[in-house]
Amino acid sequence: MTQSLTIARPDDWHLHLRDGAMLQAVLPETARHFARAIIMPNLVPPVVTGAQAAAYKDRIMTALPDDMSFEPLMVLYLTEDTDPADVAAAHASGLVKAVKLYPAGATTNSASGVQNFDKVRPVLETMAEIGLPLCVHGEVTNHDVDIFDREAVFIDRVLDPIRKATPELRVVMEHITTKDGVDYAKSGGDNLGATITTHHLIINRNHILAGGIKPHYYCLPVAKREQHRLALREAATSGDKTFFLGTDSAPHTDANKLLPCGCAGCFTATNTMALLAHVFEEDGALDKLEGFASKHGPAFYGLPVNEDTITLTKNETATVFPEKIESGDGPVTVFDPGFPVFWDVT
Amino acid sequence: MTQSLTIARPDDWHLHLRDGAMLQAVLPETARHFARAIIMPNLVPPVVTGAQAAAYKDRIMTALPDDMSFEPLMVLYLTEDTDPADVAAAHASGLVKAVKLYPAGATTNSASGVQNFDKVRPVLETMAEIGLPLCVHGEVTNHDVDIFDREAVFIDRVLDPIRKATPELRVVMEHITTKDGVDYAKSGGDNLGATITTHHLIINRNHILAGGIKPHYYCLPVAKREQHRLALREAATSGDKTFFLGTDSAPHTDANKLLPCGCAGCFTATNTMALLAHVFEEDGALDKLEGFASKHGPAFYGLPVNEDTITLTKNETATVFPEKIESGDGPVTVFDPGFPVFWDVT
Repeated sequence: MTQSLTIARPDDWHLHLRDGAMLQAVLPETARHFARAIIMPNLVPPVVTGAQAAAYKDRIMTALPDDMSFEPLMVLYLTEDTDPADVAAAHASGLVKAVKLYPAGATTNSASGVQNFDKVRPVLETMAEIGLPLCVHGEVTNHDVDIFDREAVFIDRVLDPIRKATPELRVVMEHITTKDGVDYAKSGGDNLGATITTHHLIINRNHILAGGIKPHYYCLPVAKREQHRLALREAATSGDKTFFLGTDSAPHTDANKLLPCGCAGCFTATNTMALLAHVFEEDGALDKLEGFASKHGPAFYGLPVNEDTITLTKNETATVFPEKIESGDGPVTVFDPGFPVFWDVT
Repeated sequence: MTQSLTIARPDDWHLHLRDGAMLQAVLPETARHFARAIIMPNLVPPVVTGAQAAAYKDRIMTALPDDMSFEPLMVLYLTEDTDPADVAAAHASGLVKAVKLYPAGATTNSASGVQNFDKVRPVLETMAEIGLPLCVHGEVTNHDVDIFDREAVFIDRVLDPIRKATPELRVVMEHITTKDGVDYAKSGGDNLGATITTHHLIINRNHILAGGIKPHYYCLPVAKREQHRLALREAATSGDKTFFLGTDSAPHTDANKLLPCGCAGCFTATNTMALLAHVFEEDGALDKLEGFASKHGPAFYGLPVNEDTITLTKNETATVFPEKIESGDGPVTVFDPGFPVFWDVT
């Protein structure tokens, strides 16, 4: 018995494409299924100005295979020195679709992030005026805050004060990992959205730490206990337009994952749509997949839903995904859900 | 200014020596400072019978350098097929000082462990009669129990029922990692003791997971949140004879630590006494170090305190420990406390 599902072509509202050889290797993995993606600006050095975003977009389009269509939605990395006028100009030209807030030290290449939130107030006020969304990595980085509490503490100490001070600012809580995040996003009104990754719908912290340490399951924010994973599942499959897909697909070579201090990130670009079909089917919510992957994101960003479609097919034999993809820098392990998946994009 | 402290030579009440080339490499690291150690029996295959323990003890003594003195205190690995008469004979001969309970699947080489605790009741009753302690890896292994809850759940579901059914059984809660473990051990009376590792006094779970994943800090039971580390510090430095040192020093080659599924264990044999002096000084409890490292353990096991001594000296320059030791199988990383230590054994 074959089952199939055709949906508007999806977008990825949180994606790491890197640069150079790695960009070349991972871009087709996303462009094969996704029409657009919000492109993370945490390169070294980060993408801070409109000019840097334009140059990065050019490099992405140059790396795109001729037979593929894909639109990178560019994002500026917010620093304490960001110029509100440059942000406004980059938005007015249609180039930049969001600004990203990294608390300093929160994740890969976030050293240039914000320490003093007062310093970025003028930028946030400009963004609120022009309707440019702020994408937020929602974790405090204080050493004395337990890593599993950092999302909830960020909401209380940073996010809620920012939103109260600038209620018109549109904010995306990226890669939420807790019930606290779900609850806050749900109650936040039309100016607040939240992305959920593929892997956080599948793994909890036991997958990282029980029976051996598994660096390929390690990302930031780190996966939490099972009750939080279940809250994410419920949110993603609920049909609530607050929640949409942002894979946070983040390629690191195996050499950089299997280190004494291994890099944070799961690479899910290759098999995300098949995994999501599995997850939504398991929760009896296949009819909600299109909203989550293809409709709620464009609605939040004020963009049209893609006109083309993809078809997901469920087969009788398990889909074989590549275990790794080759990059110029070394192999990158594809996220392994740990169970057979019978869906594929056809 | 030089500060020094002379204490009875310490013992290690929980140690992994492995076998073959690894045994040869790590044994001197322990024997240099420690007079005796409780030797974990989780080899492949495990040390289950008195005859196997005798053969393993011979291999350890053969591996011991001629200029070192050291007494391995042998332990039998409890399985559902363990013969009470063999255990009693191995104890009567003076060879075996404890029996180890691993819940099946709890840690490195624990596949032969106990699944059905009713099956080991006759052995436990024999042990209670002859006064032979049971050393317990206190974690349930159920997939549906969060890894950070597994110690507390083990106490409720397994340990407390065993102790109520066999109140005369002497039990060591090994490598406790939670305030729950501390509280249970404290209230358990004279038949209950608990070991604490060096690394659990120093790291919490943020050390493993914040700012990158650090396999060399990964052990089982995994380090918990800061409030639990503080409870362990308080217990170890309190002078309460319930608590004594069991390093759980567990060598794995770097190749086996830095894997997609890396092995559990921290190797602390080399620098444990210097680290403990640092920890106890920091907590204003240097006068309690001898009890924790040299006196409470022998008292629990009914053995004499060692007659020889070691002297710990605090210098003005930080002690340089080897970053790794060489084993026949590859380098083994020595536990890095992440701060300078000025103490050393002289």
